[in-house]
Amino acid sequence: MVVKLQSRTKKTQAAFLRVPPRDRDLLSQAIMSATTISVAAPADFHVHLRQGSFSELVTSHVRLGGFSLAYVMVPIIRLTFHRIFLLTGPQPNLQPPIVNTEEALLYKAQLQAIDPTIEYLMTLYLSPDLTPDEIRKAKQSGIVGVKSYPRGVTTNSEGGIESYEVYYPIFEAMEEQDMVLNLHGEVPSDPTSNTCVLNAEATFLPHLVKLHKRFPKLRIVLEHATTRAAVECVKSLGSTVACTITAHHLDLVVDDWAGQSWNFCKPVAKFPDDRQALREVIKEGHPRFFFGSDSAPHPPDRKSVSSPKQACAAGVYTSPILLPLVATLLESFGALDKLEHFVSGFGRAFYGRPAADERVTLRKTLHKFVEDSWALGDATVVPFWAGKQIGWEIVSE
Amino acid sequence: MVVKLQSRTKKTQAAFLRVPPRDRDLLSQAIMSATTISVAAPADFHVHLRQGSFSELVTSHVRLGGFSLAYVMVPIIRLTFHRIFLLTGPQPNLQPPIVNTEEALLYKAQLQAIDPTIEYLMTLYLSPDLTPDEIRKAKQSGIVGVKSYPRGVTTNSEGGIESYEVYYPIFEAMEEQDMVLNLHGEVPSDPTSNTCVLNAEATFLPHLVKLHKRFPKLRIVLEHATTRAAVECVKSLGSTVACTITAHHLDLVVDDWAGQSWNFCKPVAKFPDDRQALREVIKEGHPRFFFGSDSAPHPPDRKSVSSPKQACAAGVYTSPILLPLVATLLESFGALDKLEHFVSGFGRAFYGRPAADERVTLRKTLHKFVEDSWALGDATVVPFWAGKQIGWEIVSE
Repeated sequence: MVVKLQSRTKKTQAAFLRVPPRDRDLLSQAIMSATTISVAAPADFHVHLRQGSFSELVTSHVRLGGFSLAYVMVPIIRLTFHRIFLLTGPQPNLQPPIVNTEEALLYKAQLQAIDPTIEYLMTLYLSPDLTPDEIRKAKQSGIVGVKSYPRGVTTNSEGGIESYEVYYPIFEAMEEQDMVLNLHGEVPSDPTSNTCVLNAEATFLPHLVKLHKRFPKLRIVLEHATTRAAVECVKSLGSTVACTITAHHLDLVVDDWAGQSWNFCKPVAKFPDDRQALREVIKEGHPRFFFGSDSAPHPPDRKSVSSPKQACAAGVYTSPILLPLVATLLESFGALDKLEHFVSGFGRAFYGRPAADERVTLRKTLHKFVEDSWALGDATVVPFWAGKQIGWEIVSE
Repeated sequence: MVVKLQSRTKKTQAAFLRVPPRDRDLLSQAIMSATTISVAAPADFHVHLRQGSFSELVTSHVRLGGFSLAYVMVPIIRLTFHRIFLLTGPQPNLQPPIVNTEEALLYKAQLQAIDPTIEYLMTLYLSPDLTPDEIRKAKQSGIVGVKSYPRGVTTNSEGGIESYEVYYPIFEAMEEQDMVLNLHGEVPSDPTSNTCVLNAEATFLPHLVKLHKRFPKLRIVLEHATTRAAVECVKSLGSTVACTITAHHLDLVVDDWAGQSWNFCKPVAKFPDDRQALREVIKEGHPRFFFGSDSAPHPPDRKSVSSPKQACAAGVYTSPILLPLVATLLESFGALDKLEHFVSGFGRAFYGRPAADERVTLRKTLHKFVEDSWALGDATVVPFWAGKQIGWEIVSE
C-alpha cells in the first residue's frame, strides 16, 4: 500500500499559522487533496446483490464503492422463506430462488450482464436439497462456497429445525472439493433459554468449534462477526477458519440502532467493547480477519418504521460508499495502514485468489458528504451514513 | 382482591366437549364474560402527562385505563433540555418548564381542570436550582417527590455533569421532610468505559446503594427497573428503597425493539432472563416492587422512523389500556392473584397513601382488540399493543 500522508508535525502547524488567514482554506484543501492512498483492488467477501430491477441498481454500486470482486450470497430459497422473512424481512424483488449450480450460474450471468467488470464468486445455499454430487458439480462450475443461515443449528433440533449433523455428508464433500462454508453464526432467539439477538452469536460459537474439529480441513468463514467472543474464538482455531467483519459493525454499537431502524441489521451491533475487539483485530493485522460488507439493500419503506405493526427489515446498505467508508473508519481508530490487507490481501489469500493487479486510489477530502439515496427506474436505496461527512473519496481514473 | 375464575378442570373440559359444536362459541363467551376480577382502585406511580393540547388527550386516559391516582413526573426543565432531548427526543408541546413548587402546583391545577376525578401526586425535578428551603416549601404544598434524571450521576462528574454529592443538602432536607427520591437509574452511555443502553442500569446500581447507605431514612424509588441486577439490588436494600416496574417491560425483550421503534423506550427492554426476574418478583408478591407505567406519549411522527437522520423518541404509551394490559400480562405468567397488590396496595403503602375505597372491575374477554389510536384536536397518540388482542376489559359502571 502506498500511503502519502502529509506530515502533521508542530512545525507544519506553525508554518500554517503564518499563512494569511484568507489563504488558509485554499491551502488546507490543497494539502488534503495531496493526501492519497492506493490499494490493490478491494474484494467484498460478503455481499447481497438481490434480483430483478433492484439488482440492476445495487450491482452497479460494487464498482462505485471501489470494489472489483463480489462474493455473492445468493437470494434465499423458497423452503426457508418464512423463517428468513422473520430474520430479515421480505427480500425485494424476490424471483425464483437459487437452489442449485445451474441457477447460481444463471444468477451470475445476470450479474455479469449488469456489470461485466466485477469478478463474481458464487455460493449455494445450505439446504436439505443439496447433495454431495451437487457439491462436486458446483465446484467444477466454479462455485466457491456454501452459505448456512441460522436454521441449520443443532440447539433447536428438537423444535423441528434440523441439526448440522444431517449436513455432514455435504461438508465431507466440500472438504474434499476444497469449498468454503460460510456461516451466519447465530442461533434463533428463544426466551426459555435466555437467547436473544444480543447473545445469539456467542451462543453459536460452540457449533463453529465443533464443526472445525470434525472437519479440520474444511475452510469455514464465520460471517459478519460482531463480538469479542467471536474474535477470540476464531483466533483460537486453526488456519482453515476465518472471519469477515463489516464496515457498519466497526462503527455502530447498540445505542445506534436503539430507536433508529436504519442502523438495524442482523447480527445486531453489540457493546462498545465488542466493537473495540473488531477494531483491535484489524489493527493487529490478523490475516484470518478480512472484509465482507454484508451490504444488504432494502427499499426505503422497508427500513422505515411507520406503524407498531410492522418492524423494519434487517440490513445496512454500504456498497456505493464502501471503500471510502472503510478508509474513514480505519483511520478513525488508527488502522489506515491495514486498509489494503483488510479489504484486499487477506481475503483473497484465504480464498486462494490471486493478488489483484488493478489498484484503487483514495484521496482525503474535507468536502464529501454521502448521498441521500440512489435510484434507478422504480428502485431506490438509501445508503448508510446518508448525508454524513465522509473523509475519503475514490479518485476517478 | 375478589377473583371469580371459572374452573378449568378436565371435568369442565369434558363437559364442554359434550355440548353440541354449534353452541360452543356462545357458551364459551358466556363463561368468559362471567370471569371477573375486582381490585382496589389502581395507582400509577410513574406517569408522564405532558402539557398543552397533548395533555388534554393523555390526561383523560388515566381514568380510561382504570387508574385513579397518577404520580406525575413533571415536564423536564430548560437547563437540561439538550441532554434530555438526546435521551427521549423532543417533548411534545413543551411549554414553560416546571422548576419550583408554584409551577408544579399550577401544573397540577391544569391536570385537575382536565380530569378532576384523578388524584395527582406531584414531583419536582432534581436540578441545581433546587434548595432545601424549596424542598420544605414543596412538602408543605403537598408535593410528594423529587425526580432525578441521568445527568445527576457521579461517574461522569469529570465530564462536567455534576455528582450526586452536590445534592446531599437537598437529600438531607428530603429525608427530614419525608419526601421520596425517584431515580431514573441509568448512567450515560460512554464507549470508553463500555457503557451503553444495555448496561446503563446495572452500572447505576452502586450509586443507589451508596445513596441508601448515606441516607438510610430517605425513601428512594428506583424507577422502571428492567434487569435482574436491579431487582436483586433493591431486594438487598432496606425498607426505604422500592422499585417500580412498567407494563411494557413485563412484555418486551431486546428482540422486540430491534427494528421496531414503537417498542423503543428508556431504559430499553433487556434479556429474557431480565424480564423473567421482573415477573418473578411480582409473582413472589414482594411489597417493595409495585407498578409505575412510565407511560410516555409521543406524537406518531416521533415514534415512526422515516429517515436515517432522525431516530425516534423513547417511550411506550400504555395509559389508555393500562389495567387490562397489566391483568393480561400478569395472567400470562401466572401472577393474576397479585394484581391488586401490584397495581394498588404496595405502591400506596410505600408512599403512605390510604388504601383506596373505590374498586375497579375487569372482565375476561375473547373479543377485545386494542384501539389503533386516540385523537383530540390536533393531538394523536398510538398505544402499545395497537390492534393486538387483549385478554381483559374494564366493566363500565
